[in-house]
Amino acid sequence: MSEATPGAAATPRRGRGRRPADQVRAEILTAAGNLLLAQGMAGFTIEKVAAEAGASRMTIYKWWPSRGALALDGYFTVVGPALAFPDTGDIIVDLTDQLTAFVRLMRDTPAGRVISQLIAQAQTDPDLATAYRERYSGPRRALAVEALTRAVARGQLRADIDPESVVDQLWGACYHRLLLPDQPLTEDFARTLIDNLIRGLR
Amino acid sequence: MSEATPGAAATPRRGRGRRPADQVRAEILTAAGNLLLAQGMAGFTIEKVAAEAGASRMTIYKWWPSRGALALDGYFTVVGPALAFPDTGDIIVDLTDQLTAFVRLMRDTPAGRVISQLIAQAQTDPDLATAYRERYSGPRRALAVEALTRAVARGQLRADIDPESVVDQLWGACYHRLLLPDQPLTEDFARTLIDNLIRGLR
Repeated sequence: MSEATPGAAATPRRGRGRRPADQVRAEILTAAGNLLLAQGMAGFTIEKVAAEAGASRMTIYKWWPSRGALALDGYFTVVGPALAFPDTGDIIVDLTDQLTAFVRLMRDTPAGRVISQLIAQAQTDPDLATAYRERYSGPRRALAVEALTRAVARGQLRADIDPESVVDQLWGACYHRLLLPDQPLTEDFARTLIDNLIRGLR
Repeated sequence: MSEATPGAAATPRRGRGRRPADQVRAEILTAAGNLLLAQGMAGFTIEKVAAEAGASRMTIYKWWPSRGALALDGYFTVVGPALAFPDTGDIIVDLTDQLTAFVRLMRDTPAGRVISQLIAQAQTDPDLATAYRERYSGPRRALAVEALTRAVARGQLRADIDPESVVDQLWGACYHRLLLPDQPLTEDFARTLIDNLIRGLR
């Protein structure tokens, strides 16, 4: 359903009685994430999300300040499960699982193209840049820093490391190959990044 | 001089006799790099470069296949000296010098904004992406890989390292903070990146 079918909002795809707010919110987020992955920011409109989730535009505007904010929250919701941070107690296993899953998501699904275009647009759209930081990259960074901090507490990593810099050397290095594909983005590359950092180059 | 002054190409700023091709080429590259840094891709035209360098558009089209190719070659020419790769014989000193110079260039000059916008545009412009890779990121990667390979030959780094992955964990990590400024891009950050890799996190 699109803006070209004005009756859409009045006749939502799935008729339902009054749903709890949490459920409406969850359905909006899923609809937003799926729409973003299917059509990129170019095809992403509040109207389409509203129609798909059987919610009103007013409800969406009440909860999200902008189209970009809704898109990023939706993206986080939909890719979140694929990017879950395991906690097996072994930081090398956990980093390897997470980073190779991230590489597969970027390389083998529409998420790679979508996220590249979001980062590109954020360079000239300050509102989108803020939404990206507050609703996607900030929370994802926090999950990684948490995992690294747990590993420090368990004595698996040195106590004086700067976890934020490690995020840039693992996920940031992958984003670098995603955006500038001089060299391929592969699971082996992800494993090498971890090995370089854990063992050191000397 | 701009497209709005059609007489510009006929009355170049600096009148000169016939110059050797190498000199014309060098002056075109300098004019292109300076125009790109001053105005970004939005203000970058072959006409302006031709007028500034006192060359004809035909000459420029003979040597460069596209506006993007000229812009990237010009950028490489103008920022090259600031990004020279020293070879003191000590890889840690050399990496630190180069990476902190790169951070200063990105953070303190228009180069940071210009390169962000080039990377952004390359996401939806395949010709610009090719020009970026062939004329900027590829050659810069090669310089770094060369320096790392020299360090391996001198026994300063392990013989089994993958130099390409190290490029992504040093310069790529800086690009990550440039494009997604969740955390600040500083000289201390650059030093931490090197230290993480050289010593290892364990």
